[in-house]
Amino acid sequence: MNTVIRADGRALNELRPITIERGWSEQAEGSALISFGRTKVLCTASFTNGVPRWMAGKGKGWVTAEYSMLPRSTNERMDRESVRGRIGGRTHEISRLIGRSLRAVVDMKALGENTILIDCDVLQADGGTRTAAITGAYVALADALEWGRGKKFIGQKARPLIDSVAAVSVGIIDGEPMLDLAYVEDVRAETDMNVVVTGRGLFVEVQGTAEGAPFDRGELDSLLDLAVGGAATLSGLQAATLGAEATIS
Amino acid sequence: MNTVIRADGRALNELRPITIERGWSEQAEGSALISFGRTKVLCTASFTNGVPRWMAGKGKGWVTAEYSMLPRSTNERMDRESVRGRIGGRTHEISRLIGRSLRAVVDMKALGENTILIDCDVLQADGGTRTAAITGAYVALADALEWGRGKKFIGQKARPLIDSVAAVSVGIIDGEPMLDLAYVEDVRAETDMNVVVTGRGLFVEVQGTAEGAPFDRGELDSLLDLAVGGAATLSGLQAATLGAEATIS
Amino acid sequence: MNTVIRADGRALNELRPITIERGWSEQAEGSALISFGRTKVLCTASFTNGVPRWMAGKGKGWVTAEYSMLPRSTNERMDRESVRGRIGGRTHEISRLIGRSLRAVVDMKALGENTILIDCDVLQADGGTRTAAITGAYVALADALEWGRGKKFIGQKARPLIDSVAAVSVGIIDGEPMLDLAYVEDVRAETDMNVVVTGRGLFVEVQGTAEGAPFDRGELDSLLDLAVGGAATLSGLQAATLGAEATIS
Amino acid sequence: MNTVIRADGRALNELRPITIERGWSEQAEGSALISFGRTKVLCTASFTNGVPRWMAGKGKGWVTAEYSMLPRSTNERMDRESVRGRIGGRTHEISRLIGRSLRAVVDMKALGENTILIDCDVLQADGGTRTAAITGAYVALADALEWGRGKKFIGQKARPLIDSVAAVSVGIIDGEPMLDLAYVEDVRAETDMNVVVTGRGLFVEVQGTAEGAPFDRGELDSLLDLAVGGAATLSGLQAATLGAEATIS
Amino acid sequence: MNTVIRADGRALNELRPITIERGWSEQAEGSALISFGRTKVLCTASFTNGVPRWMAGKGKGWVTAEYSMLPRSTNERMDRESVRGRIGGRTHEISRLIGRSLRAVVDMKALGENTILIDCDVLQADGGTRTAAITGAYVALADALEWGRGKKFIGQKARPLIDSVAAVSVGIIDGEPMLDLAYVEDVRAETDMNVVVTGRGLFVEVQGTAEGAPFDRGELDSLLDLAVGGAATLSGLQAATLGAEATIS
Amino acid sequence: MNTVIRADGRALNELRPITIERGWSEQAEGSALISFGRTKVLCTASFTNGVPRWMAGKGKGWVTAEYSMLPRSTNERMDRESVRGRIGGRTHEISRLIGRSLRAVVDMKALGENTILIDCDVLQADGGTRTAAITGAYVALADALEWGRGKKFIGQKARPLIDSVAAVSVGIIDGEPMLDLAYVEDVRAETDMNVVVTGRGLFVEVQGTAEGAPFDRGELDSLLDLAVGGAATLSGLQAATLGAEATIS
Repeated sequence: MNTVIRADGRALNELRPITIERGWSEQAEGSALISFGRTKVLCTASFTNGVPRWMAGKGKGWVTAEYSMLPRSTNERMDRESVRGRIGGRTHEISRLIGRSLRAVVDMKALGENTILIDCDVLQADGGTRTAAITGAYVALADALEWGRGKKFIGQKARPLIDSVAAVSVGIIDGEPMLDLAYVEDVRAETDMNVVVTGRGLFVEVQGTAEGAPFDRGELDSLLDLAVGGAATLSGLQAATLGAEATIS
Repeated sequence: MNTVIRADGRALNELRPITIERGWSEQAEGSALISFGRTKVLCTASFTNGVPRWMAGKGKGWVTAEYSMLPRSTNERMDRESVRGRIGGRTHEISRLIGRSLRAVVDMKALGENTILIDCDVLQADGGTRTAAITGAYVALADALEWGRGKKFIGQKARPLIDSVAAVSVGIIDGEPMLDLAYVEDVRAETDMNVVVTGRGLFVEVQGTAEGAPFDRGELDSLLDLAVGGAATLSGLQAATLGAEATIS
Repeated sequence: MNTVIRADGRALNELRPITIERGWSEQAEGSALISFGRTKVLCTASFTNGVPRWMAGKGKGWVTAEYSMLPRSTNERMDRESVRGRIGGRTHEISRLIGRSLRAVVDMKALGENTILIDCDVLQADGGTRTAAITGAYVALADALEWGRGKKFIGQKARPLIDSVAAVSVGIIDGEPMLDLAYVEDVRAETDMNVVVTGRGLFVEVQGTAEGAPFDRGELDSLLDLAVGGAATLSGLQAATLGAEATIS
Repeated sequence: MNTVIRADGRALNELRPITIERGWSEQAEGSALISFGRTKVLCTASFTNGVPRWMAGKGKGWVTAEYSMLPRSTNERMDRESVRGRIGGRTHEISRLIGRSLRAVVDMKALGENTILIDCDVLQADGGTRTAAITGAYVALADALEWGRGKKFIGQKARPLIDSVAAVSVGIIDGEPMLDLAYVEDVRAETDMNVVVTGRGLFVEVQGTAEGAPFDRGELDSLLDLAVGGAATLSGLQAATLGAEATIS
Repeated sequence: MNTVIRADGRALNELRPITIERGWSEQAEGSALISFGRTKVLCTASFTNGVPRWMAGKGKGWVTAEYSMLPRSTNERMDRESVRGRIGGRTHEISRLIGRSLRAVVDMKALGENTILIDCDVLQADGGTRTAAITGAYVALADALEWGRGKKFIGQKARPLIDSVAAVSVGIIDGEPMLDLAYVEDVRAETDMNVVVTGRGLFVEVQGTAEGAPFDRGELDSLLDLAVGGAATLSGLQAATLGAEATIS
Repeated sequence: MNTVIRADGRALNELRPITIERGWSEQAEGSALISFGRTKVLCTASFTNGVPRWMAGKGKGWVTAEYSMLPRSTNERMDRESVRGRIGGRTHEISRLIGRSLRAVVDMKALGENTILIDCDVLQADGGTRTAAITGAYVALADALEWGRGKKFIGQKARPLIDSVAAVSVGIIDGEPMLDLAYVEDVRAETDMNVVVTGRGLFVEVQGTAEGAPFDRGELDSLLDLAVGGAATLSGLQAATLGAEATIS
């Protein structure tokens, strides 16, 4: 790492200040208000005993997610998708990404015929909303699973969580790989990558995109190194937030 | 008032604890996170220099509002309106009510050709979301007007705010009129009324509905008395929150 | 009442000419073509034996309503909501108001597991379409209930109608409260109120809105007085139209 | 023609009773409430000075139509297309047919840059709604053209109407060709044909469909004979209704 | 026939080169890629054992169709209907026409409780897409029926096909009736007719439209003569393509 | 590479048979029908002189894409997105991916104020539709650019193509990394990756997803190696298809 100075004074491999307010929402079975710097995402988990009809009778559960941004979470107000009458491609894409990321750490057999729907609503956006959403959603998910165990919808010995999961963005700006891009960095990045990593350090998703010039194998490797380091920090924070309660099998 | 005890121990003419976090959102021109007990609404005001095309050239501004609930703001998760592809009647009705309430205290000539759009997003719902939204929206509106003055979109001597505005619900339960219904009270109410009152004590909206038995003139009068008292308290809180900054003409 | 002359020469407390053509539609279980002056609304009641699935097995019925305007009912043609692909907020709001107003006078237990859907289609609009719709809808409803009794879907001794219901608008123009506003009056009104009153004189809905200046308690009282008087006249007309056939319990 | 007796006692080549109430709607530039027996369609014509942007500057006008059915115009209530959020294929098809039929008798150059939109709303449906709509729409159109001439949007010497137009259905039931099918006949027809004919006896549209068995050339010829006769009667009625006012070039 | 020369040198009663590639799609139960000159339509038939719920238990099957154009099948790219969020009137109209045409040659009792859905997707459009679609759809349908027989969803002795069906357009250009219009002809036609004819020479649909001047009975007769001749050629091609495999009862 | 045998007998690092029919569509400015085995995608490029309004005046062009599948391109018929009234998340995601991939090899300044829209319609689907679409879209794009140069919308010396681009899928099945997955392989893959690579061997997109177990760094590296090899073969095919005509700067 060299000594390039970032807009907010961070080192190239430094995350923004991360906070996780567990249980922020009093009505959901699990919830977390997570901040990556000024980015704030409210994640709530809704636990339903039972699964959609097409899945019934297989002894397996389902985990899914919906992502959305408040219209004035951004610097310029956006129209509501409900007003436009259709959900945009980016929203769909991120909702699907969050769902896949969470499912990668859940043993659906151990979950049993239960459904968990995670809502990730961006209250304030300053870059990295999808990675904050995944990281916070895991905390909400873990609490909803404990709630389900308390209600005996999940057996006492079942271990539906097989790992934890966190996500972080990395990018190349002026040729320099850096971790956890804020919005002003994101718009300037030549390459932008979102990486979803489990607590054990395995990859769930790697999504790298050349926004400007295409990238070579060496750049790709540097970005992956940075991401794995940042994700490990986030995994530690998740574990600290959840304490002993998130029982990973 | 007799000595009926409410679920949360309040007196019949007592509001729930009210908090207003002004400026909660860092990106909007005005914002407030308001709580009426467990009900939490994030109100943001977006200021645009200019008006919709059909209004241009008349020297007048426009104020409008959009209301929405997060899917898990409620005890049972609701489907998103963006997913259903259409906005429900209740959402439309409340958005229109908030817009009318705010316009009643704005001098559109003094505002000039500027548009303010207020978003009221319910983060947690426990009854009274529309009255909390109106009360918080006024604070966001006042700050956005000051922002517009700072940017010189509004003249230094213009006084677009001609009054303040707040709202509160009242209802009759087991024959007993009471102020500021929480959700458990709301579902039991025979009559339910939302009243929007200015800081000077004038009515902007009176919307009373017999959910159970129709009501007589005496009951209507009792409800109006209660509402006027509650609204006066809210107006005081708004003024305290805004300090000298909301210049009412 | 003073001697202000209205555009059409009416006294301040005078309704427009009201006509109710009962049974206008030959295919519906109940119907009425109602006119408030030039405002004409076709109300049809569709009786279904059975209730929506979510209500089944509770021994109770359901009454609901849909309101719509023909595109050229108004002076300027409006786009059809079917063409725009979405129902506007005003349409939703009025449909809900009509439904609530009718349900307030129906004993759902006595109705049994039957559903009545009232369609109110405005053929010509000149102010007061929602109040004409409610007043006409009651006549269609009463006939549909008799039809259901004739078909033995409703027991011979059941008395589902517990009262009649009518509605009228009132407003303040140039400081003067007046009854049953025509369109030219409606657009000039400072305050506009729709009041739904039962045959026994109780309130079902009170919806007052300050379109211009907010109103005080004295003005509110004057408007309510006017409305109660107008509604009593409408109730008399409904009873005369229906004769002995609408058996109110 | 043999002596088959129809449900309502008509001869095989006999129309149902036809009535045309010209000017039924007080707000439209032209209107007619037309009945073909129990089928009732309200046709209103909206005249706009100017044409859609894509047609501007060509010195030509435009005529178009929209068809719709009230939800309880039929024996079984249908859902509103506005509620379903989309317009059905049948509605589109009939709207397009009405528009084409009217355009066939209008000289767009003589109309000048004016637009006429005809709304045909079925208030009661008992078969033949599209043919009643076309026949009534012509009357509304003729009056709207006179209105436009009165307003000097159309030149005093211009003759935009080059012919009149009417429509009628024919069909084969139990091997017997017959004119102007009522609903009970329509559902039993093996072949069903809608024919649009000008006052001068020329064809604008011929739409024949084998609902049951395919038809041969002889049957087709019989149906066309019947239709031409019925249309001539309708043209006579249109002329009598309009009197000297519909100036056909 | 006189000696008018058409743009592509065809005689007035001559079809464009027709090709039918049977089984083009490897995954459908029946398929054909049909060309009428440059017009290319891919027709696939999807066989489902069972019928929609509203038809179940009647021992009868159902055949339906959907038509669509690729956005760049035309000379000017069109927006996708999926992007616009609604299906246009023309698409609906043609889908319904194809479905009716196919059902006219299927014995639904012999089909049994099976459903066949035909998709006709226009890959390249140069006039006559609906007639090519019907003609190709019949081939796909016949193969899907054989597939169903092979799977024993249709009985070995059942003869669901009671005839074959083909379609062709005819039109009048500069007063001259001609067969199978290409796009450059279609836009110039005064009258345009689509005729659907069975292999036995009976009419299933006759849809004639005066695009310019209305037409008289003599012109109508000439067009029908031309169409019957063209359809016979197409029926022969269908039979040759299918060989012995399409067993018509 | 070990000696695992794939369903179709290919080696682990072997592509399916690839064919590119350039100019398949006669009406588009560029087109290609590409096959990756049984997967067939029709790619058409529509060239518009000018850019969307929000981009005008910047001297830069735009390239975008839309992806769709025919309803019966798959083994089980899917509902059309136009019928469902909304575009699914997967469709949006792939359309965006194709657009980004193409833009990565276009110099927007050299393109000038021109827009190219690529439609990729899947006629038959057997895995790898998005990678076939990108690979074929490049050919259509290159031809559309030449068309634009021929029409002088693009300057003779401008070199809008700065590289070529192709895409291929890779995945891990039973622990074995393999190239260009067919559908039967895709559904079994533990990890699935789509890689978009330029002719010069640089990465445009890397999208790896753990469908089953998360993957480690070694597996990621093996997949990238395979993908780079396959993409080089595809780049060669593109160059051979286009010959000297695609002038890359």
